[in-house]
Amino acid sequence: MPALALETYPLWQEAKGVLPLISMKEAESLILSSLEHLPAEHINADQAYQRVLRHPIFADRPAPPFDRVMMDGIAIHSSSTSKSFIISGTQAAGAPALHLNQPDHCLEVMTGAPLPSGTDTVIPVEQIEVSGQRATLLPDTTFEPGQFIHRTGSDCAANTTVLPEGIKLGPMELAIAASVGATEMSVSKLPSIHLLTTGDEVIDPTETPTDFQIRRSHPSALIPLIEGNKLGKVKHLHLADDPDAIEQALASSLEQADVLILTGGISMGKFDWVAPLLRKHLGEPHFHGVAQRPGKPFAYWKSHGSPSVFALPGNPVSVTATATRYLLPALMTMLGMKPTAQRAPLAGDFLWSAPLTGILPYTMQDGCITLHPPRNSGDYLTLAGKQGFAVVSEPKKQYTAGTLLDIYPFF
Amino acid sequence: MPALALETYPLWQEAKGVLPLISMKEAESLILSSLEHLPAEHINADQAYQRVLRHPIFADRPAPPFDRVMMDGIAIHSSSTSKSFIISGTQAAGAPALHLNQPDHCLEVMTGAPLPSGTDTVIPVEQIEVSGQRATLLPDTTFEPGQFIHRTGSDCAANTTVLPEGIKLGPMELAIAASVGATEMSVSKLPSIHLLTTGDEVIDPTETPTDFQIRRSHPSALIPLIEGNKLGKVKHLHLADDPDAIEQALASSLEQADVLILTGGISMGKFDWVAPLLRKHLGEPHFHGVAQRPGKPFAYWKSHGSPSVFALPGNPVSVTATATRYLLPALMTMLGMKPTAQRAPLAGDFLWSAPLTGILPYTMQDGCITLHPPRNSGDYLTLAGKQGFAVVSEPKKQYTAGTLLDIYPFF
Repeated sequence: MPALALETYPLWQEAKGVLPLISMKEAESLILSSLEHLPAEHINADQAYQRVLRHPIFADRPAPPFDRVMMDGIAIHSSSTSKSFIISGTQAAGAPALHLNQPDHCLEVMTGAPLPSGTDTVIPVEQIEVSGQRATLLPDTTFEPGQFIHRTGSDCAANTTVLPEGIKLGPMELAIAASVGATEMSVSKLPSIHLLTTGDEVIDPTETPTDFQIRRSHPSALIPLIEGNKLGKVKHLHLADDPDAIEQALASSLEQADVLILTGGISMGKFDWVAPLLRKHLGEPHFHGVAQRPGKPFAYWKSHGSPSVFALPGNPVSVTATATRYLLPALMTMLGMKPTAQRAPLAGDFLWSAPLTGILPYTMQDGCITLHPPRNSGDYLTLAGKQGFAVVSEPKKQYTAGTLLDIYPFF
Repeated sequence: MPALALETYPLWQEAKGVLPLISMKEAESLILSSLEHLPAEHINADQAYQRVLRHPIFADRPAPPFDRVMMDGIAIHSSSTSKSFIISGTQAAGAPALHLNQPDHCLEVMTGAPLPSGTDTVIPVEQIEVSGQRATLLPDTTFEPGQFIHRTGSDCAANTTVLPEGIKLGPMELAIAASVGATEMSVSKLPSIHLLTTGDEVIDPTETPTDFQIRRSHPSALIPLIEGNKLGKVKHLHLADDPDAIEQALASSLEQADVLILTGGISMGKFDWVAPLLRKHLGEPHFHGVAQRPGKPFAYWKSHGSPSVFALPGNPVSVTATATRYLLPALMTMLGMKPTAQRAPLAGDFLWSAPLTGILPYTMQDGCITLHPPRNSGDYLTLAGKQGFAVVSEPKKQYTAGTLLDIYPFF
């Protein structure tokens, strides 16, 4: 591959002090401003869990849609001077509203029933004594006229927006959609994501490694991280450190995918073909090299009509840290969500002695986070039981307890 | 149904001041101590996302399994006095370790490769000048003997537990499992959950409601809340407020399900058949009536050999609050997780004026929660965009900013 002049490549120039690394914020901003929104698709509500809504959903009726009885008991008119009422009927939920026309009568009413016409007040069963066809208020019972009635439209008027565009449809949102009859909706199409892992030392987890091989773990983390959060559909292919194989797979994925993720082969090794080949196909990257640990060799390409290409460094901690920090927010943005920065305070003092911005696994307790720095970017065992990655943006700094850090949870 | 003496029923007695409501903590404790662990099943790792592991997973080899090169560069022996080395070969990742036997020679090494024998130090490419077959240290280059080598077993020894029993398998845990070759595992079987919704006023969301009907929303919330968190498989059936229909469905579900959820029909209305029929089949409940808002009529049954039966009050806020507060932790416990209480501090002062423990929707920002009390237990529109429910345990209390509350997130 003599055409690939690795030595003239940006990361090498940075290594020689020619080119500065860019900051995490610059990298994020370059990615987010390059993204294109995904098209929408029409689906049934029972397929909509965790999908991103592409239009507001409105109340088709006021909420509640009728004057709704809120307690089991009796309905009376508050102008009555009686303390004891003849029960002239029973107002069940799911039945049309009855009518009361005698001031010394009442109607038994059930929670969820429409308020009978001619009544304006509900007395709960706790405050009455029923004997035969007569209900008598217990001694000292007082009531507010209008009590225990959930009035038509008191939660919202018809045509109010109950779910805004861009919201992720969780359990509560799906219940709200059902309640207004939105049994179909338009949501963002899931991006087609190709994951190309590289590395001659990496074998399938079902195979037995030799002394100098390791098992492949990137897809086991990235596929659930993406698909479990309903941020895309992932197709995975592993490639040897062979420029022809990589170029062929790249060419095909650049045609087919909305997003392309590569892991490994992006640093300064002699067999790191990913960057030179991507440059050949897509020209210069938006950036290559970020002042962060782990994940310094991270590169990103996006040219018009091409997929967004995330080339992640190959160590397992680097892969999961950069994917959580950059890839997931990018996918959310493509899907039409407005991912707001989440922050949480440090539980204790923390010394970050590295000369780069850190991306560190955290656990949260009582609203505060504890950082668990891996010993190195290969030390993925540290990640068990962690909840996401937090950013210590300033290098070589003593952080004090309570400092708010940006956090990127796995869910 | 003359056999069902509703008037002798516990909640009625409580209403008349005979029987006290139990506290939230008592209810929780009665539920948790009644639960049975689910059996395990053997599955492939690619099906294991969010499942609960039923045995520890051990490292099959030390991690890393060999002295792993951590930087692209050259490997030398630190005892050499040379500053310039003849490159006698290239050590790729995925190839057996080479051997260096001349002190003024070096081997090119790539990240992830095994350290060549006869070397003990890696010099990164940033610190060398390569010319032809010779690598020369840049002026002022110093190094620590042993640097940039990820030593065999330095993350963990062989047979170390890398994932404990009872952990939920998220993306990071699945990557760790893959890395040690755990491509199959034993996980807790998902409970078979029957959801029986009731209410004559409730129609299918695809139908057009009359003036006195509402659309069914409980399954739209509960199914994703349970299945989206991989806590069970839900089968749903809607029942009219008809004792024969309810009894028939109950009898069948009590035979088939591990967990039975009923919504509605559990309060003191004339058509509230759920509790009397459950009493007929299962005897007295563990409790019926909890000093909480919403969800006061909540009841729970569990007799030997029967499913755990959660009878939730029918208002949508009551259903989601009690399911999130009690049902999800119960399912986690049945699955073998040890759900630790999560807490978060209040963002601002909060007055809880109700005479019962509150279960209120919250949002979290910067590690602190803000409560969003619904206007009433029918006001489910408040739930849009909320992250879970928080508990204000003491009635009629002014809570100050910073007070830690128990939280129950939806995810």
